[in-house]
Amino acid sequence: MPIIYNEYYNGLTGLTVGLEKLLFSEKSEFQLVEVYETDTWGRLMTIDGMVMLSEKDEFVYHEMMTHVGLFSHPAPKRVLIIGGGDGGSAREVLRHSGVDTVHMVEIDETVVRASKECMPGIGDFENPRLTVKYENGLTYLDGRHGEYDVIIIDGSDPVGPAVDLFKKDFYQKCYNALSDNGVLIAQTESPWVTSYHESMKSLFDAIDELFPVSKMYLSFIPLYPAGMWSMAFASKGVDPLGPEVLARVDKGLAGFGDKLKYYNKDVHQGAFAIPNFVRNILR
Amino acid sequence: MPIIYNEYYNGLTGLTVGLEKLLFSEKSEFQLVEVYETDTWGRLMTIDGMVMLSEKDEFVYHEMMTHVGLFSHPAPKRVLIIGGGDGGSAREVLRHSGVDTVHMVEIDETVVRASKECMPGIGDFENPRLTVKYENGLTYLDGRHGEYDVIIIDGSDPVGPAVDLFKKDFYQKCYNALSDNGVLIAQTESPWVTSYHESMKSLFDAIDELFPVSKMYLSFIPLYPAGMWSMAFASKGVDPLGPEVLARVDKGLAGFGDKLKYYNKDVHQGAFAIPNFVRNILR
Repeated sequence: MPIIYNEYYNGLTGLTVGLEKLLFSEKSEFQLVEVYETDTWGRLMTIDGMVMLSEKDEFVYHEMMTHVGLFSHPAPKRVLIIGGGDGGSAREVLRHSGVDTVHMVEIDETVVRASKECMPGIGDFENPRLTVKYENGLTYLDGRHGEYDVIIIDGSDPVGPAVDLFKKDFYQKCYNALSDNGVLIAQTESPWVTSYHESMKSLFDAIDELFPVSKMYLSFIPLYPAGMWSMAFASKGVDPLGPEVLARVDKGLAGFGDKLKYYNKDVHQGAFAIPNFVRNILR
Repeated sequence: MPIIYNEYYNGLTGLTVGLEKLLFSEKSEFQLVEVYETDTWGRLMTIDGMVMLSEKDEFVYHEMMTHVGLFSHPAPKRVLIIGGGDGGSAREVLRHSGVDTVHMVEIDETVVRASKECMPGIGDFENPRLTVKYENGLTYLDGRHGEYDVIIIDGSDPVGPAVDLFKKDFYQKCYNALSDNGVLIAQTESPWVTSYHESMKSLFDAIDELFPVSKMYLSFIPLYPAGMWSMAFASKGVDPLGPEVLARVDKGLAGFGDKLKYYNKDVHQGAFAIPNFVRNILR
């Protein structure tokens, strides 16, 4: 088993990574979770054969799924992460010292266990501000109102257990669960994978209808299809590109030292630049 | 031969594309040039086995190699392209109606022939404003002073015939060949390919020393290593992010209709946002 093959496009387009050893393999109630030692990306987790993260590139995804939203909110204290079982998004959220509580609602405890056992540098699971709940994110949100300042939807592709995370019902519940200044972030797939365009459009149409502010932003993620990954920003009012947000980024990052490897103020702004062909997917 | 394998990183990291038919294969004096019919990317050209462009994704590279520089210059009339034998960069330059002459200096006529024969939609070779010269770009520049408003270095990777295109001597000649408001653009590899970091740093150090303005910018290119590609902008004075440049982008693009699939004003600005780990390569 010398390489893993991550097929992502029509036809035979894919990504290969050299594998050295299978460290974890368990078929849970929901999916097959595996962790490999690789030749150049450190350890790498797959779910149902699709690359989720590697130790070497995870910083891009996790920094961009968190800091864009956390700095946009004027004073985030209560953060909810749906999915994100590897722990990377929670780790980045916890860097914000003003955050009091992080709730991670992960449907599959196997993902958390695989990360803790095989990728101990990814999560910050012992942090007392973090609570992990093994529940379905959709039902977890039922009846919640105004409980969270930021909600981060860190689910997998719109197949299997994550399919509902691209539908309007779900975003209505997120809206309800958010406080007045609430900010929502979601991963929304690669614009180059045409088979996901319908899910992307359905998600952005939903947040467009529900939230006063909704935007797409992009990140370079080398092990994800085509290296281009889209994310959704939505809020009950705050504009992620407004001057008060950019001032917060400046001030906030001053306390971060050199801990971040991807995110900075330029990246915060530049990520919202959307190429024409991507804009057209959402038309 | 069902797939092509584009190895790019240490180890076995690579990209696969499904191939249907070999349409062109010729070993020139310089390199092996091939064109394939593929399953999903249209026709695809390789040089020495490395993916150069496909019909489906070439718009990103060619729009970003040209319009960033052309709109930054106040009134570009004479443009030089070194390399670029497939014709895509020249096609985009020629969209600027103010440009009087485009000189393409390509070392290998085989690349031009392969493109004309197999990828007829890429080039605009019959355009009377374009002159193709089959010469070595380095010696072509000898003794030239102030002849060009914009120079675009559209060479291949820093191995084989393109290795000199990453050295200071070459950029000194480019500087000399540029007019007073001159703008230089160069392709500068993927930040994720560590084996090219030395070449990247040497190129950016050179333009930093030679030009009053020098910056890196980035594009999402799905068939290039890691999907993240860097480009260099240098000028004798103009700031690509200055208000007069952004006004020119607005005005200029109004005449372009919907011809461009990637480049727009947001992308022009956002591309200059450089993640921390990429900044560190140049330190």
